[in-house]
Order: sequence, then C-alpha cells, then structure tokens
Amino acid sequence: MALPGRAPRFPVVCAPLVARSTTQLAAEAAAVAAKGPDLLEWRVDFFEHIGDAARVLEAAEQLRRAAAGIPLLFTRRSSREGGQPITIGEEQVVDLYRAVCASGQVDLVDFEMGNAPAHVAAVREASKAAGLPLVLSFHDFQATPPADALVARFAQAQALGADVAKVAVMPKSMEDVLALLAATTQASRSLSIPVVSMSMGPLGAVTRMCGWTFGSAMTFAVGEASSAPGQMPIKDIRQAIAMLQGSQA
Amino acid sequence: MALPGRAPRFPVVCAPLVARSTTQLAAEAAAVAAKGPDLLEWRVDFFEHIGDAARVLEAAEQLRRAAAGIPLLFTRRSSREGGQPITIGEEQVVDLYRAVCASGQVDLVDFEMGNAPAHVAAVREASKAAGLPLVLSFHDFQATPPADALVARFAQAQALGADVAKVAVMPKSMEDVLALLAATTQASRSLSIPVVSMSMGPLGAVTRMCGWTFGSAMTFAVGEASSAPGQMPIKDIRQAIAMLQGSQA
Repeated sequence: MALPGRAPRFPVVCAPLVARSTTQLAAEAAAVAAKGPDLLEWRVDFFEHIGDAARVLEAAEQLRRAAAGIPLLFTRRSSREGGQPITIGEEQVVDLYRAVCASGQVDLVDFEMGNAPAHVAAVREASKAAGLPLVLSFHDFQATPPADALVARFAQAQALGADVAKVAVMPKSMEDVLALLAATTQASRSLSIPVVSMSMGPLGAVTRMCGWTFGSAMTFAVGEASSAPGQMPIKDIRQAIAMLQGSQA
Repeated sequence: MALPGRAPRFPVVCAPLVARSTTQLAAEAAAVAAKGPDLLEWRVDFFEHIGDAARVLEAAEQLRRAAAGIPLLFTRRSSREGGQPITIGEEQVVDLYRAVCASGQVDLVDFEMGNAPAHVAAVREASKAAGLPLVLSFHDFQATPPADALVARFAQAQALGADVAKVAVMPKSMEDVLALLAATTQASRSLSIPVVSMSMGPLGAVTRMCGWTFGSAMTFAVGEASSAPGQMPIKDIRQAIAMLQGSQA
C-alpha cells in the first residue's frame, strides 16, 4: 500500500479466489499463490458452506497453509454489489466476520459501506479488536456515478473508520473511465487512508493496468478465475507496472 | 490509423530517428526498423546537413532503403516546440518540405500549426500535391493548457486542413494528464480526422501506453534514442497494447 495521500509506487496486486469447496479452494490458492500476487482475496460468497461457520474457519485454515505466506483478504461480496447469492442472513454474515477476524487466519477484511450502519460498525469493531485492516467498499456494476459522487464514496469509507477505501464502477464511455480516475486522483490526495479503484469491463481495463499512477493502491488481477469483468492476468499486470515504473526511473 | 472519429483499435507505433549524419541515419533506421515500428519519424532538425536540400534528399533516399518498407514521417520540429536549433530560416524550411514532398521518398509530413499561416498553407499545398497526409502539431514542453484549450488545438489543426491533429504537452500533475486524455476523448469524437496525443515526461508515460484507448491514433516509442521525455521502448509499448487488446476481446 502507499503512504497515506500519496500515489503508490508499487500497487498491491490482489488475486481473487472463487472456488466453491474447501478442497478446490486450497488447490486454487496454491495455484494462484505460485503466480506471485501480493494478496489473495477469498470471495467467501462463492463458498458452498458459507452457512457453516466451522467449515468456513476450517477452509480459512487450509487457505492459510496453501497461500504460502501471501496475506489473505476475506470478502463476502453481497449479491446487491455483484457477489453470489447466499443462503444466510446479514446477522449471520456479521457473526461470520466476527469469527473469521478472531480466528487469526486472515489479514484484512472487506465489507461494503452500503451495508446496514450497525453491521458496518460491528465489522469495524471485530476487525479492530483482531488488529485487522478493514477495506470499506462500494460497487456499481451498472454505471459510473459522477466524479464528485465517487469522491464522496471514498470519503464515506474514511468517515466510517475504514483503513482502505475501495470503489469499483462500470463505465459506459471513456468519459466514465476518466471520471473514476479523476475521483481517484482527488481522493488519494485529500484522504488520509489509501484508496483503491477500478473501472470494470473492457472500457475500464486500462484502470487495472495504470490506475495506480492516478493514486489507486491496489489492482485486482486474475489468478485462476476472474471475479469481476475486465480483470487481466497477474503476469500482464506485473509487466505493465514494471514498464511504467521503468519509464519513471 | 483509426477511422475518423473513432477510437483506434490498433494505434500506430511510431519511432523517431535522430541521427546527425546520413550514414548514422541509415544505420539507425535499419536498427530501429528491425524492432518493428509501424512508422519511422525522421526528425530532420537533428540532421547536420539540413541546410543542403540535395543532401537531405539523398539522406531520405538512403532512409527509404534502410527502412525496409516501413513508412516514413518527415518532421522538422522547431526549436520553439522542442526541436533542435537549425541554421536555416523558415522560408528555406518550407522549400525543404516542398522538395521532400515532391521527391516521393517520404509518406507523411508533420508541421507545427503554430508556424506562420502562409507557411502552414504552403506545406499543406505541397503535401497535397504529392498525395501525402499532413500532421499538424502543437507542443508545449512547459505545461498543459486546460482541456478546452487542447480541444481547440485539435480543432485548429482540422480547420487548417490537417489529415491528422497532434498535441503533445507537459504535465505538472496527474490532473494535467487527465486533461490531456479528456481532450483527446472529446476531439476523437468531434473531429473527422484522427487525433494523436501524449502527455510527456514520467507523469505522462501512462498516455504513451494507454492513450489509444482514449482515442489517440498514434504513440511514439523509442527505437535507438528517444526524441521526447517519457517515450518507452517499442517492445514495451507493443506488449502493453496487446495486453489491453486481449482484455477487450
């Protein structure tokens, strides 16, 4: 991550894990870890036993082993913000975050800032108690709000106590992509926490390669399978970062 | 180049040639051509015999042979816009453009839109008579004018009869880079000719890799030696283009 308020020189490359079973998850983690991401994001909404906290914790333990030292980001993406439909209610989701935070098996957690305020507060409390940084996120898979609305989303995350603010939106034009980049540049300067952003889909792919030069502290890249449209292979993202860094030496 | 008004799917990769002597120029062209650019730009302001039209034409003929079929862009960049100081006056420069256009040894010519209107008209006439497309260009090595001023520069090139409008400016912040990209996006939609743009230096390097996704039809990359700050190697630019194209398939 970057120093607060400064454009990062080395963005964190995060690869999602989307397997459904514990066995597949460990295999996916091992395969993806071999590709050298900086962070692995376990998208637990894909996990078939999300309703069974004990099995989630067991899977997290196996993930930890398979990850070969690469830190883990724990994320339940809600179906409202592009995640998989799940069988448990929001209270149970919050309980799951509590249990996972307390387990010591993950290193960061992501929760949507659009969740119920009490739930956001509970996850903030649980992650703080465990000493884990919290990413508060906002996703729009349909459109890109205006730049000032995006800046407000980043600021909302900070106001809610986030350690990292994440915004992912869908562009309908290159003007939308520019709005996301402009908001990222502004928020990365004005906020005291790192910001992470991406414009999704084919039009936004450029932000996954180059968004860090505009202040985004992290980019998501494909390990085995993508978790959102427009993600590129880890190898490509690493090369693009190295090329740009080389040109700035 | 792209179809008029549309973002290009395959930007032209242009490599500058900056050798001082005919012999060095032919060697540079051969070495750079081997790296596979789409276009070679002969920066004749670097040429030691720019004052001797016969030697310029002879060099052009040798360049043509060394270029191995890669088209040639003929450019005298004025010292006012970042070029080398030269020993001849503007009337002689225009005569040189006339001679080079008529020679059939080059495929496009670049002339600054900021030159005297009569000279711009004369170069436009000479290139048209020879059937050569004309790039009318604007460079600011000190700063980035506001986006609307940049859009006006692209439009001015079209109004002056250009076949391609080029704008290259120096950013002092990532906001300046965004201004250049925004102007490029807008001009590539509103004009009927292709636009070419770049934000120079380390901050603007991202535009050399990704500016084509915002509507720039050409990017300059280093063959043997760069001609402006921030240019990246041809190989890197090709890889970045391929990665982005892959993500958009």
